[in-house]
Amino acid sequence: MKNSLGKEIPEYIEGIGKLEPFQGAWTKLSKGWMDEATIPAPNKAKMAHQSKICESLRVAIEKSNPKDGMTITFHHHLRNGDIILAQSMMILHEMGIKDITLAASSLNDCHDSILPLLKDKTITGIWASGIRGELGKAISRGVLEKPVIIHSHGGRVRAIHTGRIRPDLTIIAASAADIEGNATGSHGKSAFGSIGYAVIDARYSKQVIVVTDNLVPYPCIPLSITQNFVDYVVVVDSIGDASKIATGTTRITNSPIDLKIAKIAADVIEHSGLFKNGFSFQVGAGGASLAVAKFVREKMKKHEIKGSFMLGGITSYCVDMLNEGLFETLFDVQSFDAAVSNSLLNDRRHIEIPAALYANPYNCGCMTNKLDIVVLGALEIDTDFNVNVITGSDGNIRGASGGHSDTASGAELTVVVCPSFRSRIPIIKDKVHTIVTPGETVHVLVTERGVCVNPKFKHLEENLKNCGFKVMDILDLKKELDGITGVAKEIEFEDKIVGLVEYRDGTIIDVIKQLKV
Amino acid sequence: MKNSLGKEIPEYIEGIGKLEPFQGAWTKLSKGWMDEATIPAPNKAKMAHQSKICESLRVAIEKSNPKDGMTITFHHHLRNGDIILAQSMMILHEMGIKDITLAASSLNDCHDSILPLLKDKTITGIWASGIRGELGKAISRGVLEKPVIIHSHGGRVRAIHTGRIRPDLTIIAASAADIEGNATGSHGKSAFGSIGYAVIDARYSKQVIVVTDNLVPYPCIPLSITQNFVDYVVVVDSIGDASKIATGTTRITNSPIDLKIAKIAADVIEHSGLFKNGFSFQVGAGGASLAVAKFVREKMKKHEIKGSFMLGGITSYCVDMLNEGLFETLFDVQSFDAAVSNSLLNDRRHIEIPAALYANPYNCGCMTNKLDIVVLGALEIDTDFNVNVITGSDGNIRGASGGHSDTASGAELTVVVCPSFRSRIPIIKDKVHTIVTPGETVHVLVTERGVCVNPKFKHLEENLKNCGFKVMDILDLKKELDGITGVAKEIEFEDKIVGLVEYRDGTIIDVIKQLKV
Repeated sequence: MKNSLGKEIPEYIEGIGKLEPFQGAWTKLSKGWMDEATIPAPNKAKMAHQSKICESLRVAIEKSNPKDGMTITFHHHLRNGDIILAQSMMILHEMGIKDITLAASSLNDCHDSILPLLKDKTITGIWASGIRGELGKAISRGVLEKPVIIHSHGGRVRAIHTGRIRPDLTIIAASAADIEGNATGSHGKSAFGSIGYAVIDARYSKQVIVVTDNLVPYPCIPLSITQNFVDYVVVVDSIGDASKIATGTTRITNSPIDLKIAKIAADVIEHSGLFKNGFSFQVGAGGASLAVAKFVREKMKKHEIKGSFMLGGITSYCVDMLNEGLFETLFDVQSFDAAVSNSLLNDRRHIEIPAALYANPYNCGCMTNKLDIVVLGALEIDTDFNVNVITGSDGNIRGASGGHSDTASGAELTVVVCPSFRSRIPIIKDKVHTIVTPGETVHVLVTERGVCVNPKFKHLEENLKNCGFKVMDILDLKKELDGITGVAKEIEFEDKIVGLVEYRDGTIIDVIKQLKV
Repeated sequence: MKNSLGKEIPEYIEGIGKLEPFQGAWTKLSKGWMDEATIPAPNKAKMAHQSKICESLRVAIEKSNPKDGMTITFHHHLRNGDIILAQSMMILHEMGIKDITLAASSLNDCHDSILPLLKDKTITGIWASGIRGELGKAISRGVLEKPVIIHSHGGRVRAIHTGRIRPDLTIIAASAADIEGNATGSHGKSAFGSIGYAVIDARYSKQVIVVTDNLVPYPCIPLSITQNFVDYVVVVDSIGDASKIATGTTRITNSPIDLKIAKIAADVIEHSGLFKNGFSFQVGAGGASLAVAKFVREKMKKHEIKGSFMLGGITSYCVDMLNEGLFETLFDVQSFDAAVSNSLLNDRRHIEIPAALYANPYNCGCMTNKLDIVVLGALEIDTDFNVNVITGSDGNIRGASGGHSDTASGAELTVVVCPSFRSRIPIIKDKVHTIVTPGETVHVLVTERGVCVNPKFKHLEENLKNCGFKVMDILDLKKELDGITGVAKEIEFEDKIVGLVEYRDGTIIDVIKQLKV
């Protein structure tokens, strides 16, 4: 069967079940409810004054009674410094557990070491918002029998609510915790900021282990994770490599091309009709995206505009804008930069939010629904404005869906920023390899060579033209780029599906096929 | 069938269903799970940038599509100043809705005006932790066909999780809210402090209306109630009578008897073995209970003891102790005194907690499970230390279960304080009219005439005797009291059951029969 973007979607996949094709960004939401039922939260009881402390991660995992076929979940707030996911998976491997579904909110280069566990069928299923490094390459080459499922941050909450992801065990690394499992990422030597993605796992997982390298006297505040969801607490020497926990992609770029793109994007925002007092704003942390914040900040000061909230991945740049009074509030589901931990801990306008509140499409209104302007990156974009942020130009899985489609669908203005070329390959395609975010939710593409407005949004195009913008037809820009380098050779794929890209509503927006090598 | 306290419990009640007899305070909990399944949370979706604002409470209620047989829920954080519950019920009455189950976290004198709605079958079922005033009297005289169900604060969360209470509509009065329904009780002209009991309703109700008399610019922080659970927002002139919202039972008593009792109770605490650095503490707000805090405070200063947390109903007295550094943290599920709102808003050691975290018996450990010492009141106590806090000496329903049984079951030391006589009737009975809290969870009774230790806790009795306490056998104290006034005449009851007292685990600990008049 074909979805509404013309992608062929199988009706059923062994080990995954029936698939529903993508039907449009808001088609299912507009009903006011979800077809799929939600599942009950687990049913537990503990006696008073029982100890939750286990002497090691291994002991805690053993107590959770792991079984073949189980689902285990992790958060990725430690970024590339995480060592707990790999340690936990090695323990399960040593215990001989097989056929595990790994549902981490994202997988990074630091998880390369679990690749052998995919090969020996310890891990046979993966859900994640992103997959990078050796795992991405191996999955693209068919190391798993079942396709991995790529979800958005909001979609992950939906998948847990519906039981598509049904965690048997959740392991939550925390930079501070107490003996009852109250935990946070906002202080401690391994501070990483918000722990927003782990909250839904804690609520729905059958067993929850908190792992910390910083046991504090009861109670550990703020109560980012609360004790009523935590079964076991483990104290370890280290939850990760502090230098890598703190790094990120949050530096403002020095690239002249990125800065040029960012400057144009800020001009687009200024003249979009949405740049006014009380506007809300989200930017990604990569390349040009963050640089847009730099120019928007200058414009806000110049025009004395005060915004309402900044949302999403929060950087120290956002904290600066809060402190300058440019925005009232930061909603922080994920800190892109551990340097924001101090603000998160001490400034009550800097608010930690769970993923459900950030982006779950199935509730009374998540915060992405309230967003005015979002600036997002792209690996590729096609002439229908569909965006790929998951597979690279070599066909490998190497990116992340993240909040891309969530914010695009909610924002009044979605600006995609990217350079015209990556590795001398034009980024505008007739068809992107993999659609993550549908074009109907993307308003503008900004490259260093000009601005293309999605023709669905005539009104915006008029606005920009009236302000003197040179708006290009995306087909013309494509032609221009292709004229410079020629069209890149098509990558060849096998028939086997190695990845499903789930839209936030649970439908399948695209499939990723095995690379021919 | 009889429960483990010898109370006759019907197996089934029309309109309520099968009943399970109480089996002991921890019998069911010790299994590690609940026999009853939990239900899924509602399944909703909203489009981005939709307005939730309704022009009146009536319009919002109409939009929620109320039906005969529905269940509606409210919180009681406005105390005796609440006008929203009665207004909402009158709207439903005018709409001709019948057979409503009203599940308020508690009902107070301010709700007397809904009595006609019980008589005309607009309201046919009631769940509440407490019922007072004319409603209590009328229910005691059989105004409803079905018995009301009295639950504890923790038991209410369990009842919602299991769908025993299944809210079709929840109306949440808030002293501040924004257009998306983020709401709080911690600021505004009608500030009432914590909104902790409403959180579970918001999460599980099919439709949620936030009503405020103080619409603030988005976002309303703190996010005590979050927008993702709120369907409609209504702005009204007033949510209640501010003078009554602010009043409470939080003044330290001047009664010489209460002060004497409190002083003895504080001595008991001092010598219990639990009065040491890091101890946790909860006191009720009534009569002698709060006065115990006064004497414990003095002892803490004298002995330089620093506690961990104070829990529960938080008074300005608790805030003072926090500010003096006597406790590290306040966990505030309910502010007994609106004067604490400022602390709740501005001091991050003063933490608003939902009822689930406070006292739900079915999770990985609520905060009452972590309690060292609790001081509680009683209307009556029997020689097995079973406590009645719901029916008065005249047999009328006039009190509240509240957190009484929750904290008693969790605390290492449960001290019941009460005067020997109320209206010249001895408070020690062979059998109390109505058991709310089982004697097995009560360690000590303190009256102005002496201290009785539950014989189950020999070790505690030894401790106290070794410290020079005159410990009395409760049977001897009863004899002494009866010798003074004679035994009060037994109240006469009809056979009809007008109330069920549910223990926190969902079993029935007692029934309340119709008063013979």
